[in-house]
Amino acid sequence: MGDARQYFNLTSPFAFKRGGALVDAQVAYETWGELNAARDNAILILTGLSPSAHAASNAADTSAGWWEEMLGPGKHIDTNRWFVICVNTLGSCKGSTGAASIDPATGEAYRLAFPELTLEDAANAAYELVRGLGIERLACLLGNSMGGMTALAYLALHPGSARGHISISTAPQAQPFAIAIRSLQREAIRLDPNWNEGRYDDVRYPEAGMSIARKLGVITYRSAMEWVGRFARIRLDSEQREDDPFGAEFQIESYLAGHARRFVRNFDPNSYLYLSRASDWFDIGEYGGGSALQALKTLALERALVIGVSTDILFPLSQQEEIAQGLEAGGAQVEFVALDSPQGHDAFLVDIARFGAAIAQFLARL
Amino acid sequence: MGDARQYFNLTSPFAFKRGGALVDAQVAYETWGELNAARDNAILILTGLSPSAHAASNAADTSAGWWEEMLGPGKHIDTNRWFVICVNTLGSCKGSTGAASIDPATGEAYRLAFPELTLEDAANAAYELVRGLGIERLACLLGNSMGGMTALAYLALHPGSARGHISISTAPQAQPFAIAIRSLQREAIRLDPNWNEGRYDDVRYPEAGMSIARKLGVITYRSAMEWVGRFARIRLDSEQREDDPFGAEFQIESYLAGHARRFVRNFDPNSYLYLSRASDWFDIGEYGGGSALQALKTLALERALVIGVSTDILFPLSQQEEIAQGLEAGGAQVEFVALDSPQGHDAFLVDIARFGAAIAQFLARL
Repeated sequence: MGDARQYFNLTSPFAFKRGGALVDAQVAYETWGELNAARDNAILILTGLSPSAHAASNAADTSAGWWEEMLGPGKHIDTNRWFVICVNTLGSCKGSTGAASIDPATGEAYRLAFPELTLEDAANAAYELVRGLGIERLACLLGNSMGGMTALAYLALHPGSARGHISISTAPQAQPFAIAIRSLQREAIRLDPNWNEGRYDDVRYPEAGMSIARKLGVITYRSAMEWVGRFARIRLDSEQREDDPFGAEFQIESYLAGHARRFVRNFDPNSYLYLSRASDWFDIGEYGGGSALQALKTLALERALVIGVSTDILFPLSQQEEIAQGLEAGGAQVEFVALDSPQGHDAFLVDIARFGAAIAQFLARL
Repeated sequence: MGDARQYFNLTSPFAFKRGGALVDAQVAYETWGELNAARDNAILILTGLSPSAHAASNAADTSAGWWEEMLGPGKHIDTNRWFVICVNTLGSCKGSTGAASIDPATGEAYRLAFPELTLEDAANAAYELVRGLGIERLACLLGNSMGGMTALAYLALHPGSARGHISISTAPQAQPFAIAIRSLQREAIRLDPNWNEGRYDDVRYPEAGMSIARKLGVITYRSAMEWVGRFARIRLDSEQREDDPFGAEFQIESYLAGHARRFVRNFDPNSYLYLSRASDWFDIGEYGGGSALQALKTLALERALVIGVSTDILFPLSQQEEIAQGLEAGGAQVEFVALDSPQGHDAFLVDIARFGAAIAQFLARL
């Protein structure tokens, strides 16, 4: 499958918003398409909590990416026209420097010695990458979920750094329901004895905690309505009740177990804690004297597309409306699209038909 | 505070739906008001997963009950008129026989040797109690949440055993979202090393697992909307970040912690697992050839009040509508009340003004 990741060295030391700094840190990224001579056809994608920079297949890595159907030659985000960059979030574990990376000062993994990460730090790292690629101003900054918050941080810290913006299923600030869910996910990991204050290894790994965290994630990423149609009360074929009296009996349970299995050993638990906490901390209102609306007015965008989903319980439609109103009040020409996809928060990964149509239309006019 | 519990001895052996039986089992119950000479003024209350039989204060136990404002002389359920019984669910740990009770055959606690509990077993135990009190037919059977499912089981197994029925925030069958949540709660308990296949004690107690289970419960019992107004992004005063880097920072987190603290040592973990699984198993459709609607038509009620809350994500309004339609199709005179209380599933415990008004009106006409 190859590896399409490229690496960009951040300013060293790279200072963090809440104090501390990283020495010799980097971010991993992938690109699709070609930057034109005017350097004005670049789209930067900022991801949700867990995805890597591999949004789609490319020559160096032909494996399907996490947004494979959205992105490529002739697709909704047409890489024949656009130069697309996707960056692995600073603090993640897919090539960018994070808690699992080696601290050059000690020769050991940072673990909990990693500085207190905020989405602003991730935004600044992405901004350095964009400037490092010789791009003065993005044609469009696109952010999904946590990446949508990172995108708002990017624009608040660097107003005018993008002409267009696509904001998908995200939040101007973390609301208490989302904080509650994420806090509980972190608690499940931290209470796992194998977490061991961040000093786990492959043998003593907090598998139980990570599994609970992921399952809770999946529950809140989808929607009850989708599951009624998809799983109803269908039981599993296997009957293994004797030696596991409270084990899975319903298809919905094995669906969650499958999601957890695919995630647990593929994401660093400490990185998960850092990114999750950073999401709770985010509040665009910090850049508007406490007012999210005031902050959203300062981003200096020309056009924006804000998409939300009515079945999203983690990032409710009302928060997407708030973003759209703020951007509009700031003078941007805003399209607000409320979709009734049944897949909840995850719809942007699944309902490509509807999301793709809205995005392609927006980009055609950009 | 005293103890108002009375105990009723069930038939011995008391056979369970899925096999197995209990010897010398009992249910704990409390009563308010007086049974009239005609024995036709009795209301039975079946509770949610965790409450005891102490729904309200009475002479023997003057402490406030879990439905204190709803129930008493001159209150919405007026005990000057009604003889009210509240029973602790069979399989619970508040006086009724459950997994923490001593198995007379061994002299040891049942733990996982307790038979596979269903809500039908809990319903049959409650039915025996009612008959044992000399009541042929209830004036009204009232069930909240899990108790609402138990009430449907009661009526399906004993059609015509109640004249009226009040169904509150419950389900004709467990849907996959609710199953997913409960499955994850059980998993958190079972993955706690201190659970130890059910062989915990006060010293080695699955506190972490129970805490996660309870917090997840509270998250799904309330609503995101309520929390935006109530907690927003208010931070805790205390700053204890140094030695607990991922500890609570927001009020919503300490609210959840408070709920968990009050619950964890006050409910038996194995009993929790049994009642939770019984809720997943429940499907009234079993009594209608696979159709919930057909089953609901057989309950032989005269009148019913079905109440649901639009912000309830665990027992959505659509399921209350399904119950109301089924009861109506069965010939009952049905009032369906959809409330927009912001408190979600828990509204029946909190929004006493609206629930009380609906219940009092219904009872006045009964």
